[in-house]
Amino acid sequence: MTPYIVILSTGSELTAGRSVDTNSGWIANQLFELGWKVKKFITLPDDPILILSELQTLQSLAKEKPVLAIMTGGLGPTEDDYTLQTVLQLTGKKSYSVEKAKLRLTKIYESRGKEYKDILPSVFRQTHVPEGCKTLDNSVGIAVGFVESLGEHSYLVCMPGVPSEMTEMFKRRLVPELKKLYPRENLVQKTKWLWNMGESLFQNDFIEPNRDQFFKEAEWGVTANRGYIKCIFQSTNEPLLETIIQHLEAQYPKIISDDVFQYVHEQLLKEGLTISVAESCTGGLLGKKLTEQPGSSAYFLGGFLTYANEFKTNLLEVPMDTIETYGAVSDEVAKAMVEGLYQKTRTDFGVSITGIAGPDGGSDNKPVGTVCFGLKEPNGKISVHRYVFPGNREAIRENASNTALFLVYQSLKFRTV
Amino acid sequence: MTPYIVILSTGSELTAGRSVDTNSGWIANQLFELGWKVKKFITLPDDPILILSELQTLQSLAKEKPVLAIMTGGLGPTEDDYTLQTVLQLTGKKSYSVEKAKLRLTKIYESRGKEYKDILPSVFRQTHVPEGCKTLDNSVGIAVGFVESLGEHSYLVCMPGVPSEMTEMFKRRLVPELKKLYPRENLVQKTKWLWNMGESLFQNDFIEPNRDQFFKEAEWGVTANRGYIKCIFQSTNEPLLETIIQHLEAQYPKIISDDVFQYVHEQLLKEGLTISVAESCTGGLLGKKLTEQPGSSAYFLGGFLTYANEFKTNLLEVPMDTIETYGAVSDEVAKAMVEGLYQKTRTDFGVSITGIAGPDGGSDNKPVGTVCFGLKEPNGKISVHRYVFPGNREAIRENASNTALFLVYQSLKFRTV
Repeated sequence: MTPYIVILSTGSELTAGRSVDTNSGWIANQLFELGWKVKKFITLPDDPILILSELQTLQSLAKEKPVLAIMTGGLGPTEDDYTLQTVLQLTGKKSYSVEKAKLRLTKIYESRGKEYKDILPSVFRQTHVPEGCKTLDNSVGIAVGFVESLGEHSYLVCMPGVPSEMTEMFKRRLVPELKKLYPRENLVQKTKWLWNMGESLFQNDFIEPNRDQFFKEAEWGVTANRGYIKCIFQSTNEPLLETIIQHLEAQYPKIISDDVFQYVHEQLLKEGLTISVAESCTGGLLGKKLTEQPGSSAYFLGGFLTYANEFKTNLLEVPMDTIETYGAVSDEVAKAMVEGLYQKTRTDFGVSITGIAGPDGGSDNKPVGTVCFGLKEPNGKISVHRYVFPGNREAIRENASNTALFLVYQSLKFRTV
Repeated sequence: MTPYIVILSTGSELTAGRSVDTNSGWIANQLFELGWKVKKFITLPDDPILILSELQTLQSLAKEKPVLAIMTGGLGPTEDDYTLQTVLQLTGKKSYSVEKAKLRLTKIYESRGKEYKDILPSVFRQTHVPEGCKTLDNSVGIAVGFVESLGEHSYLVCMPGVPSEMTEMFKRRLVPELKKLYPRENLVQKTKWLWNMGESLFQNDFIEPNRDQFFKEAEWGVTANRGYIKCIFQSTNEPLLETIIQHLEAQYPKIISDDVFQYVHEQLLKEGLTISVAESCTGGLLGKKLTEQPGSSAYFLGGFLTYANEFKTNLLEVPMDTIETYGAVSDEVAKAMVEGLYQKTRTDFGVSITGIAGPDGGSDNKPVGTVCFGLKEPNGKISVHRYVFPGNREAIRENASNTALFLVYQSLKFRTV
């Protein structure tokens, strides 16, 4: 059974355009990976009348077909948080305070040197859920999520709007619950990344020629990211998926990868290798990405931000001559940067990045988006790589730091020791 | 007369979570500045049945009250563009090709060395609008927008989904039209940021006590961000807004700011000051933030990523003794880091960050979220600052790098040279 899925987000900051709702898209993406398509997103301001009316509409719809409504926001401590109140109005139920959440809240207050009695009633309200519903623990923040019935095979899920709380709750608490509520044939999913390739080219070159052979029994989807597209294949026929992946790998041997963030993290840990960086145009973004995962201190030691040319010469001993002859954005400077980096840090991997993030500074020879990379591998080999990335400043910087990780990925995967 | 405003975006890439809808928020923001609040965002996949049904719902609603529905997307040349078709079904009208758009399209084709007869029917369709409606010229792309009647004082606006086309059409064509359709008074808006303060505390301490005095004639709103809340006030009474801001500044002199990203950027440029960073737990995130704006190379010179302790000692000459005695996350190490940074870089400002981003590594004395900052100011003064930030690893790192910018903001704003 496949429910009619609606994602409902609340927040006056969203409908006033002061914040962008990233939750709904994120949830839709996760649901797609579970094999479900979303029929509608709705965003409402923090207005209890509008919210209640929407919930009533969904409740009526649930009389016709199974409805799954996933709602985010409105569980916080301020007067404009109405989710619990409107759900209680909808169902005619009362609420109660979840013991575990109450203890968690008390501990948080105590760690700040405050007492139980200091907790404002509005803050305390976040531990409340409607009677008799399935609760979803919050391991990041305070507000408890819950799953309320909307009718036969129909459910209303309420989660906090804070992305870090919602995503954790979704993955750890809600997904297992959804799998129980809507059991389905085991859908297998495989994902591969293709680097520096557009969605439409992928569709023309891979999907169309193989439509009859592969895609009657398998679904495909693509998401565009900075530097790569993520190609997702789904089917209940696992051997078919294997065949699709084999064809994909054969067609794109040089630009295909798995999740490079995960692979680089795991492989560096496993092999006990270290890495350092020398960043110019990315200004620290590669270092930031390399330290996103807990435990990254085992491999990421640090590095240099050499945005100004004098920092390239002073900190990394890039010869001023090289900069003057070839320009700060050049294969030669990228190479000198990674050589200087290795002299200072002696890490197994070293990566340098120098590029033109724009909007100014481009030329005919080196348009905006030109980025040069230096890569030092554990065997001592040093190589340089050059790309021209599309998009604006932010896109180019994201592209550059992701591509740097792809270079490390390729080395980890294919290098001969 | 204020219409009930709904923003409707269409696109299967949106409801699958492959793209984020930035149009709706942008439109809402523009409308908010015109003094209008949006009641609902709706996003639908490219499914003509779902789209038509939603338009019918809006048409029924327009029998009860004035409705303004602003729809983006579905006006393009591909088979999954259904907007015109569904509007014609809704109204029972026919469409015609707008002469001006036809000429524009022909010219574009000629400039590419093609002829009128080369234009595909699906491309040509973009010049069509329903009979008897107000057209909205597209000066960026091809698809023509239009305003169709939905009932008395009720309108359906259809615009392309490509942001560059939509925003231009909105500002140049639609806004003048809306001002004619719904005339009203001028609204003013002011925004301030408050640091390390919760939304609910702000509401209790500032909004409630001043509700009668200020907020009968002014609207307020708050958005929570990493490290700060953004407080927004709106009114047609500008002197009242000034008074509100004065009260806010008097009540929170130490934690109030304007947009620190913008202020730090502008002020460093204006005063010709330079800055460098020494980052541990943020891994490069502060450097990344300092280089987001074009032109940042005038002030941001670079810095050090000293994630590992040996990098703190080797690159910044932090005494190993200090690390062993006080711990890597300590006021003493933050101070030694910024001192070492200044020795190496001699920039006007220097910022060091060392903290526990978690999830592991916390203790009773130094819980996860503890972050120490060193700040070197242009007058040579060095200070240390310590915070405990809430949230998960990502939140703590965002908090820390934003707070670092707040420290620089305060120095730029209040320092005595």
